[in-house]
Amino acid sequence: MNLRMTVYMLGILMAFEGAFMLVPTATAAVYHEPQLLLFAVIALALIAAGFVITRFKPENKTLFARDGFVIVALSWLAMSFFGCLPFYISGVIPKFVDAMFETVSGFTTTGASILHDLAPVPKCMLMWRSFTHWVGGMGVLVFIMAFLPLSGGQNMYLMKAESPGPSVSKLVPRVRTTAMLLYVIYFVLTLLEIILLLIGGMPMFDAINISFATAGTGGFSCNPAGMPYSPFCINVITVFMILFGVNFTCYFLFLHRKFKDGFNSELKVYLGIIAFAIITVTLNVRSLPMFRGTGEALMHSAFTVGSLITTTGFATADFNVWPTYSRTLLVLLMFVGACAGSTGGGIKVSRLIIFFKNMHNELRIMTHPRQIKKLKMDGHPVEADVIRAVNVYFACYIMVYVVSLLLLTLDGLDLTTNFTAVVATLNNIGPGLNLVGPTANYDVYSALPKCVLIFDMLAGRLELFPIILLLSPATWKK
Amino acid sequence: MNLRMTVYMLGILMAFEGAFMLVPTATAAVYHEPQLLLFAVIALALIAAGFVITRFKPENKTLFARDGFVIVALSWLAMSFFGCLPFYISGVIPKFVDAMFETVSGFTTTGASILHDLAPVPKCMLMWRSFTHWVGGMGVLVFIMAFLPLSGGQNMYLMKAESPGPSVSKLVPRVRTTAMLLYVIYFVLTLLEIILLLIGGMPMFDAINISFATAGTGGFSCNPAGMPYSPFCINVITVFMILFGVNFTCYFLFLHRKFKDGFNSELKVYLGIIAFAIITVTLNVRSLPMFRGTGEALMHSAFTVGSLITTTGFATADFNVWPTYSRTLLVLLMFVGACAGSTGGGIKVSRLIIFFKNMHNELRIMTHPRQIKKLKMDGHPVEADVIRAVNVYFACYIMVYVVSLLLLTLDGLDLTTNFTAVVATLNNIGPGLNLVGPTANYDVYSALPKCVLIFDMLAGRLELFPIILLLSPATWKK
Repeated sequence: MNLRMTVYMLGILMAFEGAFMLVPTATAAVYHEPQLLLFAVIALALIAAGFVITRFKPENKTLFARDGFVIVALSWLAMSFFGCLPFYISGVIPKFVDAMFETVSGFTTTGASILHDLAPVPKCMLMWRSFTHWVGGMGVLVFIMAFLPLSGGQNMYLMKAESPGPSVSKLVPRVRTTAMLLYVIYFVLTLLEIILLLIGGMPMFDAINISFATAGTGGFSCNPAGMPYSPFCINVITVFMILFGVNFTCYFLFLHRKFKDGFNSELKVYLGIIAFAIITVTLNVRSLPMFRGTGEALMHSAFTVGSLITTTGFATADFNVWPTYSRTLLVLLMFVGACAGSTGGGIKVSRLIIFFKNMHNELRIMTHPRQIKKLKMDGHPVEADVIRAVNVYFACYIMVYVVSLLLLTLDGLDLTTNFTAVVATLNNIGPGLNLVGPTANYDVYSALPKCVLIFDMLAGRLELFPIILLLSPATWKK
Repeated sequence: MNLRMTVYMLGILMAFEGAFMLVPTATAAVYHEPQLLLFAVIALALIAAGFVITRFKPENKTLFARDGFVIVALSWLAMSFFGCLPFYISGVIPKFVDAMFETVSGFTTTGASILHDLAPVPKCMLMWRSFTHWVGGMGVLVFIMAFLPLSGGQNMYLMKAESPGPSVSKLVPRVRTTAMLLYVIYFVLTLLEIILLLIGGMPMFDAINISFATAGTGGFSCNPAGMPYSPFCINVITVFMILFGVNFTCYFLFLHRKFKDGFNSELKVYLGIIAFAIITVTLNVRSLPMFRGTGEALMHSAFTVGSLITTTGFATADFNVWPTYSRTLLVLLMFVGACAGSTGGGIKVSRLIIFFKNMHNELRIMTHPRQIKKLKMDGHPVEADVIRAVNVYFACYIMVYVVSLLLLTLDGLDLTTNFTAVVATLNNIGPGLNLVGPTANYDVYSALPKCVLIFDMLAGRLELFPIILLLSPATWKK
């Protein structure tokens, strides 16, 4: 372990997080809220602490794969700890574990909340919640890399550990330029959504918050009334949720007019699943009394499908009361998740493609042992270590899932609540079913299950390995 | 595909199934039941048909892996079809799909039933139900191999395709002697249980039926009153359920005084899980009003844990009303299943050990890439193709699970019912939770979902590959 380099990276992270907090500080100033001083003090303290720590530059800047995992895991823990201080100190969220839950939920773009009522929450706090989604979506270390010239090529390990998906490809040879390009696309798309929502008549505060939450595929609401927006705005959000679930590499390729490369098999399967789900759910729910006709059913079905497959977690309708087919399909979509290299969570479409393509290939080998073919995706061979990593990912996923589920039973809530609470946090979605459904919240759990869910949100966002390896004794051996 | 050899094998199977039906025929004679003639006619017809078909001996007896899968899958389908005729023709089960469900449930040792009341069912029919468990438990083709000198060494493929577990080891060099040894151990253990139950005061009919169902880890009940037996009998059943969930290779090794080899890591983990589950479930349920004290809670907890991990599916207590921890743990045990090479179903302990050992190994490689170690179990290296087969098994398992779950939603029943119905059939257990709980039955489903569950029972018993490959176009290509 390169311990000094780890501390140095945490110092940089603190300074950046302090800078991020200037956004809610500004919000507090605009709305003349009393939390202005608090945000300003924490922001400046973080910047100052980061400045001091980064004065001690480590001589050895070499990072190995192991260091990458540990730095990413510790960064996210530290970021969540500092990020929860405004909620906790201001008393907006009186219990520390709740403040931590809310902040982890923000950065991991889960959107699961323990707040019962948003009405008394100051606007600066709501803005900070939404902004954690935006920062967490593309990744804070990727953000830092885009701005700071770090050591040589080894920060690829950091990017690999923070970015979602079975394999990370650089858009351009330099990691720093790649990180910058990703954030430019991310920023432009977010801005576009804000503008369209403003055109649709949404108030500025809501438009910014909703766009931050959509961009990170987070799902925190900023309006005590839920989603009281025009059909135009609802549809804009649906489209942007789906857009932010697409691998950003595709946009890069589209911009370079490489349409054939950009429209790869993951994107096709992703859009195919969405189309199938929207059609069948609409047919399944259209006669419910909550909808006036098929058109409205279609709008809410599309919104819900987009919201859950991209793991955003917004809700315009209480899908907890929808028929069993829709409820089951929606739970399955929660597992699927968005595309690799997007801001969405879940297992990821490309990982599922590799998983099932490999299954198909191996079954073929069973019946025709002499015709061994290499697994291919979009014409490129899938390397054996990627296939192995996908299999290990599933094993870890099942293990974390089972252990979390058992620990959650200590509170005695029903099976569906526990089952979907783990799905919704481990896949960074937000709402589950029953007691954690879209009209309820996670305050039904006591402190220990909340800690388990915090762990699941972090494990889900960082795709299991960094968090599991952080806890493994082997990681800390020389 | 060696089609003529396939037909030949089906002929042998028919003759053997006819012989098996002499057991219920004898039962009908003993109890002077009117179904005597029906059973006798079907039995003789099957024997005659089998005799005629096997007159045409195929010249080419060569079997490949593919043929092994297909023959096993078709054998089980044919066996279930002929086996359901007594139920259907006699009118005891008026609908064909129900009769097929009950028979598949019997042969696959699932024990899921569509019968509402056992009181009007003739004793010969109950005996046939229980006997299908006994035959299906160790495998009908393994039985045939023990009696008939089939072609060379290639029938190993049949044994591989019918026997549970990630890898099949021959006890002795000859497949036929191995099959014979397995059935001798199986027969002796069954006899031992019958004798102990008779000592415990159980009526002869019940003792034989219960022992058949325990031996095959099936779970069909033979008494309209459920399990109205003495605590001694209940405990005997508990012990024998757990014994029949042990790899029969272990017994073979114990008989040869190779205690260290017999007490392998799978057996240790299996017994460890059982001990952990019994203790924690007892603590969780002991204060329920349905139990008079911890002693009774322990007895029923041990029975239920043994019943579900071995996928037998007997019930002495309605675990559907137990607290969430117990219900969740029991559902997880349903997935775990018994040991490889036992009569139990489920994923199998050894497959889980390989799965998680491989995960641990791969995680270690991530942090220490230069220390590559081969996966070992009980001192022997686990071959790469076994690890790959385990991973493919999990992929197939998830695929079958998800598709089944979606098709089941067409009936509109609740999530927990559907979720546990698939668990209980795919793992050959029997009862699930809610509407398919231990006091309910599978008649809540309509015809199509019943067909899905029939598929799941067969897929589960044959460990997915034979049934999936039977449906795959690639299998039928030249």
